[in-house]
Amino acid sequence: MKQINNKSKILIVGLGLIGGSYAKALTKKGYKVRAITLDSSDIEYAIDKGFLEDGTTAVTKEYLAWADVIVFSLYPHTFIEWLKKYGSMIKKGTLCTDVTGVKSCILSDAQALMPEGVEFIAAHPMAGRERSGVRHSDETVFHGANYIVVPTEKNSEEAIECCKKLGEELGFYRISVLDAESHDRMIAFLSQLTHCIAVSLMCTNDTPGFEAYTGDSFRDLTRIAKINGEMWSELFIRNKQFLLDEMDNFINQFTTLRNMLENEDKEGMCEMMRISTQRREKFDKPKVNK
Amino acid sequence: MKQINNKSKILIVGLGLIGGSYAKALTKKGYKVRAITLDSSDIEYAIDKGFLEDGTTAVTKEYLAWADVIVFSLYPHTFIEWLKKYGSMIKKGTLCTDVTGVKSCILSDAQALMPEGVEFIAAHPMAGRERSGVRHSDETVFHGANYIVVPTEKNSEEAIECCKKLGEELGFYRISVLDAESHDRMIAFLSQLTHCIAVSLMCTNDTPGFEAYTGDSFRDLTRIAKINGEMWSELFIRNKQFLLDEMDNFINQFTTLRNMLENEDKEGMCEMMRISTQRREKFDKPKVNK
Repeated sequence: MKQINNKSKILIVGLGLIGGSYAKALTKKGYKVRAITLDSSDIEYAIDKGFLEDGTTAVTKEYLAWADVIVFSLYPHTFIEWLKKYGSMIKKGTLCTDVTGVKSCILSDAQALMPEGVEFIAAHPMAGRERSGVRHSDETVFHGANYIVVPTEKNSEEAIECCKKLGEELGFYRISVLDAESHDRMIAFLSQLTHCIAVSLMCTNDTPGFEAYTGDSFRDLTRIAKINGEMWSELFIRNKQFLLDEMDNFINQFTTLRNMLENEDKEGMCEMMRISTQRREKFDKPKVNK
Repeated sequence: MKQINNKSKILIVGLGLIGGSYAKALTKKGYKVRAITLDSSDIEYAIDKGFLEDGTTAVTKEYLAWADVIVFSLYPHTFIEWLKKYGSMIKKGTLCTDVTGVKSCILSDAQALMPEGVEFIAAHPMAGRERSGVRHSDETVFHGANYIVVPTEKNSEEAIECCKKLGEELGFYRISVLDAESHDRMIAFLSQLTHCIAVSLMCTNDTPGFEAYTGDSFRDLTRIAKINGEMWSELFIRNKQFLLDEMDNFINQFTTLRNMLENEDKEGMCEMMRISTQRREKFDKPKVNK
């Protein structure tokens, strides 16, 4: 695998929301895309909609050998289980990558389970939807979003470049490179903590009829409370220490504000709001590319 | 004041973001709109942009006498101070209303400060922007939003109907009626708590460079962290008990989730996420009217 271009053959393992969105984006760019997934009706759907060339539910050496690049779009534990079962069948020279939302806990396992001559380079496409499954896949989910390559010292420069190129081809707004620990700390704060907040807020009060008075603030804070529990609870546990740190930091800040309110410390509250206003300026959305 | 129609003369007291948006919406509907406000440049701006007929910085009996309806668009304490100073000058038969975000703490004061023959009917237009001032006013902020009339036993049916009509003319999606306590409890949860969360989240972590990796989740949860501290800290303190209750309820839920994570209780986390997903379904945005 010297480079990625639209002659490269891409095999998606796990044709769900993200796997399907990869297939859509890459097919549009002229790539040949195939898939291995559990449910044959997902394959039929994708072929019928024109964003998959072929697919199978059976993992065979021959089918894997077709691919120049394999993208694993699976839950973390399923990914590792898959590699234990079938990893040895992957053809020498194949470049393997993934889409997993946490890195430290799986990177060394994944790299160790690759057969000789097969390089695994981790990546995290920071994109998603409130709904799962290939039927909700949509390549525009990548526009304006971040794609993070997470190499270790075992990775070649060549693989890092290929992986970055894949992110570009998918249509991501920003392609970056981070080590696993920095990635996992960042994800704990920017993504996992926000999901914890949304879920907790939604569980806080179920007074009937409140939906009639809901404005944009509440809707925005709880959009991600519609959540794939199976996936996110696994991602939380696999990033436990970093996420616990961020949760505790947040509780500290929130409790500080709560106590200022109890003490009617208007000045203190204003100061927190001044800081939040100022910091938030930096986080405004960039212009979306196409 | 028997009814509101576009022959009615509307005087806005306080030409800021919301006062200005009222002026824009009502001018478009053919109403005559004037304003009393502190800064004469705001008046010049609004007249120049064609959404104000006239305005003044001086409160006089004659100027107030022009109005059929006066809309107070002021901070709570400024509203009450204004009434103490000038309330007695309001012409008999004028209908007064407001836009204040909390009700219990000001309703009885405001009603008591109206001269005989002047009825005050409270209302809360649940709409806003991250920026303040008449230059950011925009009547489309009301589309898809809620307008809540908050009468007391002192209000006439006629005034309630007039106030509802005003909400319709402004272009609100839903017009409702609530008593002050129900309003303030609802606001504590749906609006004030969400702002407390956004501010606290923004204060939780200021690692340089995180903005480069920010996705929609974090942006959505912190949009309202750009906040008018002067106004919101006052609204929080004036709704202190209800807001403290909701903050404590939220801390309970969040801490429950935190402890589940610490104990790797995947089942418990999945159950909270199942509840949050199910509840959130009810809160999807209605189709916006025009």
